[in-house]
Amino acid sequence: MTPPLAEIFSQGDEVVTGEIADTNAAWLARELVPMGFHIARHSAVGDRLDALVSLLREISARADLCLCSGGLGPTCDDLTAEAVAHAFDLPLVEDPEALRQIEAWFARSGRPMPAVNRKQALLPQGAERLDNLWGTAPGFAVQAGRCRFVFMPGVPTEMKAMFGHWVKPDLARRYVLAPEKLVILRTVGVGESALQELLEPVELPPGVRLGFRAGGPENQVKLLFPAACPEEQREATVRRAMAAIGEAVYAIGGDEEPGSGLEAVAGKNLDARRAKLFIVEAASGGLLASRCAGREWLLGTLAASPPETLHRWLGGKPEGDGPRVAATLAVMALARSGADFALVQLAEPDALKEGSGPAPVHFALAGSNRLWQESRVVSGNPQRKRLGAAALALDFLRRRLPGG
Amino acid sequence: MTPPLAEIFSQGDEVVTGEIADTNAAWLARELVPMGFHIARHSAVGDRLDALVSLLREISARADLCLCSGGLGPTCDDLTAEAVAHAFDLPLVEDPEALRQIEAWFARSGRPMPAVNRKQALLPQGAERLDNLWGTAPGFAVQAGRCRFVFMPGVPTEMKAMFGHWVKPDLARRYVLAPEKLVILRTVGVGESALQELLEPVELPPGVRLGFRAGGPENQVKLLFPAACPEEQREATVRRAMAAIGEAVYAIGGDEEPGSGLEAVAGKNLDARRAKLFIVEAASGGLLASRCAGREWLLGTLAASPPETLHRWLGGKPEGDGPRVAATLAVMALARSGADFALVQLAEPDALKEGSGPAPVHFALAGSNRLWQESRVVSGNPQRKRLGAAALALDFLRRRLPGG
Repeated sequence: MTPPLAEIFSQGDEVVTGEIADTNAAWLARELVPMGFHIARHSAVGDRLDALVSLLREISARADLCLCSGGLGPTCDDLTAEAVAHAFDLPLVEDPEALRQIEAWFARSGRPMPAVNRKQALLPQGAERLDNLWGTAPGFAVQAGRCRFVFMPGVPTEMKAMFGHWVKPDLARRYVLAPEKLVILRTVGVGESALQELLEPVELPPGVRLGFRAGGPENQVKLLFPAACPEEQREATVRRAMAAIGEAVYAIGGDEEPGSGLEAVAGKNLDARRAKLFIVEAASGGLLASRCAGREWLLGTLAASPPETLHRWLGGKPEGDGPRVAATLAVMALARSGADFALVQLAEPDALKEGSGPAPVHFALAGSNRLWQESRVVSGNPQRKRLGAAALALDFLRRRLPGG
Repeated sequence: MTPPLAEIFSQGDEVVTGEIADTNAAWLARELVPMGFHIARHSAVGDRLDALVSLLREISARADLCLCSGGLGPTCDDLTAEAVAHAFDLPLVEDPEALRQIEAWFARSGRPMPAVNRKQALLPQGAERLDNLWGTAPGFAVQAGRCRFVFMPGVPTEMKAMFGHWVKPDLARRYVLAPEKLVILRTVGVGESALQELLEPVELPPGVRLGFRAGGPENQVKLLFPAACPEEQREATVRRAMAAIGEAVYAIGGDEEPGSGLEAVAGKNLDARRAKLFIVEAASGGLLASRCAGREWLLGTLAASPPETLHRWLGGKPEGDGPRVAATLAVMALARSGADFALVQLAEPDALKEGSGPAPVHFALAGSNRLWQESRVVSGNPQRKRLGAAALALDFLRRRLPGG
């Protein structure tokens, strides 16, 4: 079965001039994908009638569904209904029920209705009105060519409420849908191209698409399974992919999955023991602390790169090479802080400066009767190195204190 | 003069499926508008060759410039170069210099180059290579129909660096532009609607557009002057706007202006004295530290919200109300750290939890013979409060130790 083709279209000068990022389009896409639509394209145009008319006509010829937001307001730059009227030869007609609702909305807010708002009751002939219980602009839907267009307000709260209440249930009834299943493997410490090489030997069932999302040391592997793929086959494929990548997989699920962030996974063990962690952060300058901010298990953090500052606060100057100094500082931080565990992340200050090469970062974790140590390398510009050092510290913690 | 028509195009399944909002497109639009381009449309398509090819052909017939981001990576879902080759009949050719640069990038990172990365050196015949000094994927530009296409990586840091270094200066040479002049006033501590009220009495010359960009306590006021507006008139308007807003203006210029960030402005005085600052951060959980990471003047930071942890590290438990405790802790931190100044930011731990109301934050700054104190209020969800507390700490520092 071929999934219906959907497009998403946003109207407004504030979008095309970049004043705001088009979060409406992203939100609508995240709703449509799991329902089983294939999203072919997003478009945004400004407040110009000719641009709107030609975009609407183009879309009517190539998509089965188009969700639109914006341009339904009362002001002169809100042109969506007029553009629909022009594009599809559907003259604007005042909808008495829409007018009544707009008047009632103002009556409820205790304000007189400005004359310009009357325009919002003008809908293209034959359009189905979508009541707006959350603001003044009613939405509407029209069929044009092969495409059903649904027009919603641009204000995110109104758009989301209207989509959830009216549009989504209607789409589920109207289209024959077979939702695809997306499985995301979240990994840390292995680069995007290395991940691809690790996954090359994994055989994928027909129709399964493999994708990646890069984010420094935290990279996602995305497996998109067709609706027809049997569950056992899907699970077996996910298991094989996880085995191929190995211990770098720290969670299954996207950003929206609660508890799947690297900080949450790294702190699971601490949470379960109700243990407290103190962090000494010499390479990532507070980025590690800010990622853990608000966690129950975080007792505090000390961030400093000059070694003298660290020694002053921790009460001594350890001797030896990087790994050994990190381990000694972890033991000292454990004693000083009164925490159950102390995590130290250490780098040569000069290794993090602009123009420097790959930098070794030493990690140590001390508990009341255990001490772990390891070293990794970060590269790129200073900010990239700091981001890497923060993520790798969480990775170290997660592997040394594995969660349930 | 009619401004040249530009379009912006983003490639990637993560954009069309809504996994990420298309912030690249918004960023590029914000760059192009003040240069004098008219942005006609944004489009995004997923990782499908046919969709890419038809979009590229459409744009080549209607725009003078198209900026594209994404799809230049090493993996199988990175199809941009291949799509350009198909759309405009420009076979892919290995660019030896691109290959050399990719190999050198891996050599610098101390890792072997995976075989898949070789693909990134394949460019459409006749394309101008855009060196990527910030990652592996080179960009490129081609002329097709009336349109010049510029292809950049999708990773925002790489895209922004490539645009700033190569693309922007080239566009300024290549097109006849009547740039509008954008003046950005960067403010901190005053809300967007309060700014708008402060600016209402300021008379704007004809054609000047006033805009805002909200960012928690850091809000930007944007004044967009038409090319024809005389410089004296522009400067007088900016002066009046600054006077109306008052001391909340901390810099003039956008994010790309070097030294205009709040951290840079706040540290100017410390830089000039070659003084060192130690920060005790109890409200923003490392965000303040991470904003100052890498600054010469930063000696170190201690982040902790439980008061007992702070007292343990600073060596005592001060008595009194919030402002007094903050001041005492600043004096203690000054002594303990050996810094020239110590900045303390303090809040009740419970006031930052989910569901809590507006929270007072107390700031204190101690120097060898001076002590300053003030309190502000932050509100919103916990992350918003932390972001606010970090920005307001920098604002406090900037006003107490004003730069040259």
